[in-house]
Amino acid sequence: MRTFVLTDASNDSWVESFKLEGEPLGAEAFHGCSVSKRRLHGGRREGVDLVEVDNGAVAFAIVPTRGMNIWKASAGADRVGWDSPATDGPVNPAYVNLLNLGGIGWLEGFDELLARCGLMNNGAPYRDGDVLHPLHGRISNIPASYVAVHVDEKPPHEIVVEGRVEESFLFGAGVRMTTRISTVPGSNRLTVRDEFENLKDQPVEMQILYHWNFGPPHLEEGARFVAPVKTLIPRDPRAVEGLAAYDVYGPPEPGFAEQAYFFELHADDPDGRTVAMLRNKAGDKAVALRYPLAQLPCFTLWKNTAGLREGYATGLEPGANYPNPRPFEKARGRVLTLPVDGRHVAETVLEILQSSDAVAEVETEIRRLQATAAAVVHPSPKEPFAAES
Amino acid sequence: MRTFVLTDASNDSWVESFKLEGEPLGAEAFHGCSVSKRRLHGGRREGVDLVEVDNGAVAFAIVPTRGMNIWKASAGADRVGWDSPATDGPVNPAYVNLLNLGGIGWLEGFDELLARCGLMNNGAPYRDGDVLHPLHGRISNIPASYVAVHVDEKPPHEIVVEGRVEESFLFGAGVRMTTRISTVPGSNRLTVRDEFENLKDQPVEMQILYHWNFGPPHLEEGARFVAPVKTLIPRDPRAVEGLAAYDVYGPPEPGFAEQAYFFELHADDPDGRTVAMLRNKAGDKAVALRYPLAQLPCFTLWKNTAGLREGYATGLEPGANYPNPRPFEKARGRVLTLPVDGRHVAETVLEILQSSDAVAEVETEIRRLQATAAAVVHPSPKEPFAAES
Amino acid sequence: MRTFVLTDASNDSWVESFKLEGEPLGAEAFHGCSVSKRRLHGGRREGVDLVEVDNGAVAFAIVPTRGMNIWKASAGADRVGWDSPATDGPVNPAYVNLLNLGGIGWLEGFDELLARCGLMNNGAPYRDGDVLHPLHGRISNIPASYVAVHVDEKPPHEIVVEGRVEESFLFGAGVRMTTRISTVPGSNRLTVRDEFENLKDQPVEMQILYHWNFGPPHLEEGARFVAPVKTLIPRDPRAVEGLAAYDVYGPPEPGFAEQAYFFELHADDPDGRTVAMLRNKAGDKAVALRYPLAQLPCFTLWKNTAGLREGYATGLEPGANYPNPRPFEKARGRVLTLPVDGRHVAETVLEILQSSDAVAEVETEIRRLQATAAAVVHPSPKEPFAAES
Repeated sequence: MRTFVLTDASNDSWVESFKLEGEPLGAEAFHGCSVSKRRLHGGRREGVDLVEVDNGAVAFAIVPTRGMNIWKASAGADRVGWDSPATDGPVNPAYVNLLNLGGIGWLEGFDELLARCGLMNNGAPYRDGDVLHPLHGRISNIPASYVAVHVDEKPPHEIVVEGRVEESFLFGAGVRMTTRISTVPGSNRLTVRDEFENLKDQPVEMQILYHWNFGPPHLEEGARFVAPVKTLIPRDPRAVEGLAAYDVYGPPEPGFAEQAYFFELHADDPDGRTVAMLRNKAGDKAVALRYPLAQLPCFTLWKNTAGLREGYATGLEPGANYPNPRPFEKARGRVLTLPVDGRHVAETVLEILQSSDAVAEVETEIRRLQATAAAVVHPSPKEPFAAES
Repeated sequence: MRTFVLTDASNDSWVESFKLEGEPLGAEAFHGCSVSKRRLHGGRREGVDLVEVDNGAVAFAIVPTRGMNIWKASAGADRVGWDSPATDGPVNPAYVNLLNLGGIGWLEGFDELLARCGLMNNGAPYRDGDVLHPLHGRISNIPASYVAVHVDEKPPHEIVVEGRVEESFLFGAGVRMTTRISTVPGSNRLTVRDEFENLKDQPVEMQILYHWNFGPPHLEEGARFVAPVKTLIPRDPRAVEGLAAYDVYGPPEPGFAEQAYFFELHADDPDGRTVAMLRNKAGDKAVALRYPLAQLPCFTLWKNTAGLREGYATGLEPGANYPNPRPFEKARGRVLTLPVDGRHVAETVLEILQSSDAVAEVETEIRRLQATAAAVVHPSPKEPFAAES
Repeated sequence: MRTFVLTDASNDSWVESFKLEGEPLGAEAFHGCSVSKRRLHGGRREGVDLVEVDNGAVAFAIVPTRGMNIWKASAGADRVGWDSPATDGPVNPAYVNLLNLGGIGWLEGFDELLARCGLMNNGAPYRDGDVLHPLHGRISNIPASYVAVHVDEKPPHEIVVEGRVEESFLFGAGVRMTTRISTVPGSNRLTVRDEFENLKDQPVEMQILYHWNFGPPHLEEGARFVAPVKTLIPRDPRAVEGLAAYDVYGPPEPGFAEQAYFFELHADDPDGRTVAMLRNKAGDKAVALRYPLAQLPCFTLWKNTAGLREGYATGLEPGANYPNPRPFEKARGRVLTLPVDGRHVAETVLEILQSSDAVAEVETEIRRLQATAAAVVHPSPKEPFAAES
């Protein structure tokens, strides 16, 4: 394993630009692969560091400055991601005020394929006395203090981008996230493995939700959400309106009001992996997320089939909780506690499927999981998942 | 037309420093002219980009990092602008929190000759439930994602600084401003032409007000505001106190509380151009603003003849609205709506007058416009212009 | 005196990196000394300027980007400072939102040996109508607009780092702080001399408190606070709990809730200097602060003997006021007013003691001051020092 440190704030190490490709990557297997890093300039992206990885089949860009979020990806000619109305990103957190607009300032910088939500809180903003806890917390707006690239000279020649983000301060949060975003040459997968570590001498609580967002070509009229549903709960009356067709997507519809559904999913066994997929209408393109339910027991589907220029997107969101206000989740036992020296790991694999066969195979896999038991679909918001009105 | 792109965030283009002067500008006409760009360092101006233009007669500095505001100008030995108590600007928006002090954090970065107010809102901060909409909105604190210099090789050899600023995000604003700030060699004028473009698939609302600010030598004891007044309304009781002498300025007076007056102005015809002027006591120096009423029907005069070190300044403020809280303006039909794919253009010309003859000529022009009809002066705040107490 | 200007924003001067050591410092006396400056990169310290001084005996690092705070110091093998849970600092103020968490966002960047609190307000956050005044004000989060190093070729060969920080804007604050942080070769002392200057044409009010923070090896179980106490008041019921042993420190205790004590101290004469000391258990290491009571009449002791990873620290805090909410202090006459053109100077000397003899000598000095009069210890919070419950 060769390691290239790009940022190590505490050791005064920082590399403005970096590029490794082909030969220097060290093995024939890396032909067509590259890893590079550069600093962006201008507009609200001024000073943002970007790490780009191309494994020969899939390319993706990581934003250390935005908590190691994944900005964009592509597989061949297919973009994987969405078009945010925040057209000038990735946005430096220095230009984001999370408290804006009653605590939804997070949206001013939201344009990523993967935006993490947490760690002090995620979900809807809420007030606790004088304190406004902003939408989706701060982790997406904390620059990584450590970034390194690891390249494995031995098969399967893993390429790893490691990053560390601290959300820790006096009288407050105390968690370090160490992420390893990895892939192997020629693969249609990338893995996001995050380890959350208690930095304090007392137990600390945390929330984490992975906001994976997709637009065309995976999202389109007639596209479908496919997952092994154990339980389905519409978040609110607006979601109830779309419940009958929750798994089918409409065309871009200017002014469409977002809908959100909460799920429990099936897995091979209670601690096993599940898989959720978004496939296009023809069923020849899809993106799938694979992850262990034990790490991320809650799944949220966000449907925002608004106009193309308004953020026509859907979010597939595995989480340790549902994106309700944190006190709601806490009361229902869905806030994590890291004991002293404790850790929580969450690993999600993004799989990009580019043929009818590949899509069909995952659908079969999901159908098999679904066979465990029929989906229980609640006709309206229901405890303990969502507030009953 | 030769174009030099200084910033193009979406195409990874950014130039740290740039200078064109004399010969390389391309024509004999450009003798004595220059256009340059540099990055500022230190204090709260760290990382701020500045574009400076000198047309041989008038020089001015544009701040891409602050939404293409105009920081300062000068004509010969005369400064055009004011001395803000924020002495360490131009301030990087990264160091401005608009929510500070109950929503007047905008003032912490306010030191410009021209500061734009908008686009989601302008005017006084207001609360809408849990949401605090800050004073004068955010456009002055959004860095431009695109900046280019255009130099016309053909007469009249226009020099243009173009910039694009996006105020757009999910579930929120959706407007791009494309500004062209232009002048020609030897001219005493500069033109600010802004085009506001709806980036979304639904109609979007916006507000825009041009906060042009002047201090000595144009502002001084005995200086006068001259404009073709159709209607004049004092904003509040404090303004009523100064109504009798609204068009005359006092000396610097420590502790002076600001006064604001709202106007409808006359133009040649309903859609025509108007002109408003600030002239010094002797009448041999003045600054005038020319703009079409159809684009900017509302005019606000801000008198802040406080101490020289407290911001002795006056604001001549053409706007699409008056700087009341946005809901007040909305209810009175003074909030703009851009239809889908719609645009709004606002163009203002700043003219710097440096002789008694030049000043007298504009005064004559204004007198002629005033001749259309006598000014209606309301003795107290009056609907629909200002809240009646 | 030779001067090296590192930052002068208003004159477009800024030096990215700088190093002077040994010979070039100019005199034999400077052997072993150095002064250097660099810019930090990565994480939340991105873009932070750091000035490091080593006088041969004591080394310390100043953070111009954080209002000329002192990040860390060391004397031989002994660290002088503490370990903040904000492990990725020094934090660029661009990444700090003072309004966070109900106005305690200051803590997100708090990791310094010396953090200044002020100038509009310090102490606990408070609301005044719609306005939230954040914990400890903004001065620690304003980058210095001017930084220079002065080296005196004549004995005692003073090394001075000068910095200017403006907290000034329209309708708001109007103070410039000019600090001179100085030492001489081989000395165990460093002096922080701040001059606060009214920049406006009216009187301005201000608050200033010096938050000096220490952890191991000076803070440890059995360490003691030693000062010539005239009056001692526990801040609140929590402080009352620890009153009997207020001057003795416990071991790191996870979850320990902070305790604060307010003091009046004795000095040689009413306008004279006082001295307060933190010494380790063995009495062979200590840090002492010396300053004139006329400049800083109020002293606060902050005891935060929480876990080592939670910020095991104690604050010795000379101030012009106690860190109550500003209105409380104002009503009791403890807010400074700078008249027009007025100034206030506050000078504190940090002394690092590294032997039993040195510690004993200062203890003797303090005992002598204490001999003036016995300490008056109030058993509970008492006016006019603290709110009586």
